[in-house]
Amino acid sequence: MNETARIPPRSAVGFELAAGQRLTVIDAEGTQVADLLAYARNDVREVVSNGRTFDYEETIRLTTGNRLWSNRSNVMLEIEADTVGCHDFLLTPCSADTFRHFYPDKPVHRGCFGNLAEALAPWGIEADAIPVAFNCFMNVPVGEDGKLSVLPPPSGPGDSITLRAEVDLVIGLTACSAYDSNGGSFKPIDYRIG
Amino acid sequence: MNETARIPPRSAVGFELAAGQRLTVIDAEGTQVADLLAYARNDVREVVSNGRTFDYEETIRLTTGNRLWSNRSNVMLEIEADTVGCHDFLLTPCSADTFRHFYPDKPVHRGCFGNLAEALAPWGIEADAIPVAFNCFMNVPVGEDGKLSVLPPPSGPGDSITLRAEVDLVIGLTACSAYDSNGGSFKPIDYRIG
Repeated sequence: MNETARIPPRSAVGFELAAGQRLTVIDAEGTQVADLLAYARNDVREVVSNGRTFDYEETIRLTTGNRLWSNRSNVMLEIEADTVGCHDFLLTPCSADTFRHFYPDKPVHRGCFGNLAEALAPWGIEADAIPVAFNCFMNVPVGEDGKLSVLPPPSGPGDSITLRAEVDLVIGLTACSAYDSNGGSFKPIDYRIG
Repeated sequence: MNETARIPPRSAVGFELAAGQRLTVIDAEGTQVADLLAYARNDVREVVSNGRTFDYEETIRLTTGNRLWSNRSNVMLEIEADTVGCHDFLLTPCSADTFRHFYPDKPVHRGCFGNLAEALAPWGIEADAIPVAFNCFMNVPVGEDGKLSVLPPPSGPGDSITLRAEVDLVIGLTACSAYDSNGGSFKPIDYRIG
């Protein structure tokens, strides 16, 4: 597939990405977040790990040239292009629990977490096996005192990040459901495999 | 048990901690790191999560009053006392792979990761289920550009952190095996349950 596909607002998709293939995640309308998960196709107990990535890349600010590592210390994806340079790998996918906690006056949504659990179920991946996702375009500055803020993404319409698979993968990808991470708007996310 | 137990250098222990009990981790000789993991006793698929903790505590610098949350958005432990105020929740336990990567000229050790896997096996916890640990006393500053450094712990002999269990837990706890995290020295860690 080389055409662009669309993830509707507040939903997710699951698909396979073969070693050597590239995934481009596109913020079609701007100011939107896409949570990205990756599992090894031949054993889904191997999964992308923020901690192992921080270990080996020695930074929490990942962009072109950085790699996303698994819990078994293997490279899963390499960032080949990035027009934004702002992504988060600290926070977990929004969920019914995070909606209750952060937005007590708003309707509860199953969030990216629930959407990913459904999208990944066909590969036997359970909700408990969903770790911190690589949150494309998400803007989470860390203060000098360690305090975290969630600000609107700096991405504009058409901004993108391209990652190349090092091994055969199962990918989960969302158009984010939370209020804070996308500046209060719910928008689609586009993606392309090539 | 109210007496103090000792974890020998470069090893780990596993034990149960009942809801309401307190665990005090003591840096007996100073400048040493202890990796701490927590699993729900009644279902070990529930495990401490750095991402969920960062979500709800809204900081990466955790100390007295902060809580450690699980992947199911439940509080597992609350930090009740802390004489150091410097701990890491970004990096994964050192392992044979990290030894090969960071210390190619030194003997490979199974590290805290291998030690934890063995210590937790009696509860049916597999190596793949070991996430980022809460690394007591570990000193990992984050630069303005996101770059991570691993510096010697600021803890002196007898410094400690006390955590209270909110639910029945299985705990894994190490005396760290890596060179960088403890300033090149391998020392024991003491702990007390009360």
